[in-house]
Amino acid sequence: MKAIVCVTLKPDVLDPQGRAIQRACATLGYEAVADVRQGKLFEIELATRDREAAERLVRELAAKLLANPVIEDWRIERIED
Amino acid sequence: MKAIVCVTLKPDVLDPQGRAIQRACATLGYEAVADVRQGKLFEIELATRDREAAERLVRELAAKLLANPVIEDWRIERIED
Amino acid sequence: MKAIVCVTLKPDVLDPQGRAIQRACATLGYEAVADVRQGKLFEIELATRDREAAERLVRELAAKLLANPVIEDWRIERIED
Amino acid sequence: MKAIVCVTLKPDVLDPQGRAIQRACATLGYEAVADVRQGKLFEIELATRDREAAERLVRELAAKLLANPVIEDWRIERIED
Repeated sequence: MKAIVCVTLKPDVLDPQGRAIQRACATLGYEAVADVRQGKLFEIELATRDREAAERLVRELAAKLLANPVIEDWRIERIED
Repeated sequence: MKAIVCVTLKPDVLDPQGRAIQRACATLGYEAVADVRQGKLFEIELATRDREAAERLVRELAAKLLANPVIEDWRIERIED
Repeated sequence: MKAIVCVTLKPDVLDPQGRAIQRACATLGYEAVADVRQGKLFEIELATRDREAAERLVRELAAKLLANPVIEDWRIERIED
Repeated sequence: MKAIVCVTLKPDVLDPQGRAIQRACATLGYEAVADVRQGKLFEIELATRDREAAERLVRELAAKLLANPVIEDWRIERIED
């Protein structure tokens, strides 16, 4: 199975690089781009066919190894076979 | 609208930091983690209600500003209202 | 001129990806690696020959565009001609 | 001892996020910023007092765990006691 985990800065944490991309969009004429936030993505291959076990494992990994709970949020974007 | 864009290293491009996370998983007893690849995530707020226009815009941004086409793939993970 | 700016998480901010690399080091037999912290590096080309002006400019950029002052520290690692 | 390792994209590899920061600089009136490249920084604490051994170790780590040799260059920026 494969899990996609997204790790993003908490909404109240400033993201200067995302802001720079938003500014660059404006200079290129993409005025509709109101905000850009940059995060991290993890694609995790799991050697299991048990969807529940996979989800439990990924939750543990995300909390322990992938995200800093003080400044970041995480979510499982999807799990696929 | 909000678009989620994922930028990942092409499958044949080595990802040392992802590999380090996979190794760390193994030492922590998460033997089922066969592979980890780290990518970038962009959350883009768009001041439009036209879904087709939003998608067109995000495709342009991704190709021009977010990904390096030689070493990276990108995809629109989702667009939501 | 060229300036090298380092942006690092503040010492009290957890760095899960750096920790994963440290763990991976241990499993590979590099026991002497006590800690790893991952940061960002910016190499900035400046169209000026005035070293003082360059440094002033880079300080402004770092504070405004490169680092998040709440969670990150920054320093000019070096400026060279 | 503490080693600072810089990992940068090879000069011929496009860096879209660095480019976005350069564009953002221009819009903010920092016209002297000719180019920005974003890289990775690793601060490595080593439990050794042997400088030569530390350097040897860090070279191995950088080549095996920190950089992708196909698209990235690395250098030891400094080693300090």
